[in-house]
Amino acid sequence: MTPFKLTEELVQQIETLIEGQQDKNLMDLTEELHYADIAEIINELNEDEATYLIKLLDSEKTSDVLTELDEDVREAILGNLSSREIAEEIAELDTDDAADIIGELPKEIVQEVISEIDDREHARDIVDLLRYDENSAGGLMAKELVQVNENWSVTRCVKEMRAQAENVTRVHSIYVVDDSGMLKGRLSLKDLLTASTRAAIREVYIPKVDSVNVNEKPEEVAKIMSKYDLEAIPVVDELGRLVGRITIDDIVDVIREEADKDYQMAAGISQDVEADDSIWELTRARLPWLFLGLIGGVGAAAIMGGFEALISQHAILFFFTPLIAAMAGNVGVQSSAIIVQGLANNDLKGSIANRLGKEMLLATLNGIILAAVLLIFTWAWQGSFATALAISISLIVVIVVAGIIGTFIPLFLHQRGIDPAIATGPFITTSNDIFGILIYFWIAKIILGI
Amino acid sequence: MTPFKLTEELVQQIETLIEGQQDKNLMDLTEELHYADIAEIINELNEDEATYLIKLLDSEKTSDVLTELDEDVREAILGNLSSREIAEEIAELDTDDAADIIGELPKEIVQEVISEIDDREHARDIVDLLRYDENSAGGLMAKELVQVNENWSVTRCVKEMRAQAENVTRVHSIYVVDDSGMLKGRLSLKDLLTASTRAAIREVYIPKVDSVNVNEKPEEVAKIMSKYDLEAIPVVDELGRLVGRITIDDIVDVIREEADKDYQMAAGISQDVEADDSIWELTRARLPWLFLGLIGGVGAAAIMGGFEALISQHAILFFFTPLIAAMAGNVGVQSSAIIVQGLANNDLKGSIANRLGKEMLLATLNGIILAAVLLIFTWAWQGSFATALAISISLIVVIVVAGIIGTFIPLFLHQRGIDPAIATGPFITTSNDIFGILIYFWIAKIILGI
Repeated sequence: MTPFKLTEELVQQIETLIEGQQDKNLMDLTEELHYADIAEIINELNEDEATYLIKLLDSEKTSDVLTELDEDVREAILGNLSSREIAEEIAELDTDDAADIIGELPKEIVQEVISEIDDREHARDIVDLLRYDENSAGGLMAKELVQVNENWSVTRCVKEMRAQAENVTRVHSIYVVDDSGMLKGRLSLKDLLTASTRAAIREVYIPKVDSVNVNEKPEEVAKIMSKYDLEAIPVVDELGRLVGRITIDDIVDVIREEADKDYQMAAGISQDVEADDSIWELTRARLPWLFLGLIGGVGAAAIMGGFEALISQHAILFFFTPLIAAMAGNVGVQSSAIIVQGLANNDLKGSIANRLGKEMLLATLNGIILAAVLLIFTWAWQGSFATALAISISLIVVIVVAGIIGTFIPLFLHQRGIDPAIATGPFITTSNDIFGILIYFWIAKIILGI
Repeated sequence: MTPFKLTEELVQQIETLIEGQQDKNLMDLTEELHYADIAEIINELNEDEATYLIKLLDSEKTSDVLTELDEDVREAILGNLSSREIAEEIAELDTDDAADIIGELPKEIVQEVISEIDDREHARDIVDLLRYDENSAGGLMAKELVQVNENWSVTRCVKEMRAQAENVTRVHSIYVVDDSGMLKGRLSLKDLLTASTRAAIREVYIPKVDSVNVNEKPEEVAKIMSKYDLEAIPVVDELGRLVGRITIDDIVDVIREEADKDYQMAAGISQDVEADDSIWELTRARLPWLFLGLIGGVGAAAIMGGFEALISQHAILFFFTPLIAAMAGNVGVQSSAIIVQGLANNDLKGSIANRLGKEMLLATLNGIILAAVLLIFTWAWQGSFATALAISISLIVVIVVAGIIGTFIPLFLHQRGIDPAIATGPFITTSNDIFGILIYFWIAKIILGI
């Protein structure tokens, strides 16, 4: 396989073909391409070109392309299609992707699009899915699954399963339910291939099956599926009835988005933005955190203003404020990142007190090593041991306090049910800057006896 | 399903049972548990208890438990097992997990363990896998797969497939090869269920199949599999011969580890550590970046020392250095994070010049807004418009320069083949601190005409 590579030339070639309305050549060119690759190309086209190409190609292919497009591109294209045309695309999609796309449509045309879907059962399944919160297992699941009744024979099961499998892209497991639709267990394809045809399902199924509740958070579903190495998991409602299934490819997206979000929060970017978004979107995502930094900086300036009297005797103290602020910020970010990651991966054990004790020990150790280096440098540079000592001892205290703040804030937020990831990045840096500088001048003042 | 929850009580209960050597109770208690849950329990036990439990349980169960344990716990337990006992565990594992565990064993016993594996074909497959770099598709893949020859009939194919499927936990696709073992295409289980038994494989297989080269980087394999929503991908050697397959559960781990690594780098943690690692490991991972911060701080102090003459007339300039340093750091981290993420997700288009131009525009916009706020505040606080203006104009320049540095460094590192993620976090913060402060005093000096 030579992997697909999106090139400027390819996009230009497609644009020229669209301009010349060379439909045959366009069909031939896209024939061999995977829908995810076509989506990458369409993301680069303008709205008219994109709509032209979508209308030209078969809806069997374009429906999948639509699911892979950037949200704004998809919105623009769908705006140019009639309700009938959208319904034709929807008809080709699995219910979960269909519901996602319908959920993005303007409210006034949703009704119309749904009424244009010819397969009424498909339409009913999609409407069902629209009821669930996007941020839940119900919002992630698809209705396509293979289920058999525990009272059936293997022969009937194979027959029914073949019929059902027509609508299911990938069969992972066959779910076994009772007469009231309660999930009872599962059958593997392999078991079915090797079971006697005369047996009843109730004799051969595996009564143990992992499942999640429709209201479960996507991150929790991701944790369960990756911990137990599952490729699909059935979803049950509050009564334990089988209502859908979630497949691993959707979970891969959840994991990626979660990781991107935490990373952006740590970097002080408050919304899901990409490098290619507009200047305004990027500004909106970045400015709030910079304002926070500005307020912190003004606070630090005010604190230093309070120690102005020191400046005539010990100007050197002021030279080291950036160092103190940087160390306080770095230590705080390190501590909070470890906690945030531990919480995300569920591998944080022991009490908050234990955790703080460990962090204090760690910070003291790091602090002493760094302070020793700084002491030697400052003493050599300025010749005053007292000043050098004051700065170094302050550094140790600042590092310990920064470590405690960095450990405590995410744990506290987590206990309060708030995403601890907001505590990393600018939030922790800014508060540690202020605390750090306050502690630094205060301790230096005591030690130098001013 | 009531999800498993690791509790202090459960661990204590197990410890008491081990102490009392109540083997029957231990067997009953662990019978119902998933191997991933047993691994969580064993991670909490001491070495003797853990070894006792592993020796007690069936190797069919414990082999999977071993793959899920923390690395240090696994190492300790394996140290207490004989080569024969380790070989028995290995025999139960898929080749990829088996090779990973053998790769961790001390060199002197590897030979012995391998010679104790009864199934010689399994042993051969494992030895094959040991040849590949851990950080490649070859290091990730397993040898277990179902392959059929294009010249076989469907009937023979079903027979062979059933035999092969015995050794394969999950059958995703049936791979089709020619007489020399070259990968030609695939068959889906569904196709096989519905194909005529008289047909030859060459008539029914799908000649299009995604594959990766054994030397491909794991991150690339992850990108391909998640882009094309694949649950398994065949791996081919330099000649195009089918040598293994990679499944999505391994890729989920790759994605998680990659995200954790980038996140830790951004937070200034240089190795893969967890909150529960020892103080020494945590110190080793954190201290180098703190040293970098220390050097940066000393540099900043030296720069400010050079402007000491300013202090008597314009002490206020010194009060704002933490603000300037913080803003330079924050802007730099934001810019670099967006670039690093864009590079990781492959959605960065256009030239470096374009990218820098956009960042300059964005930084100027943010800078002007922030500087306007700061101007009003400083003017109101200190009463000197000239000083307030000098500080504000410096802030704009510092933000623009910080944005450029934050954009340029990761792009530059990426072009040089270095992981751009190291440019986020302390590295960018420290360099921006120094540049920021230097620019700030320099511009302020010019504007105030000193």
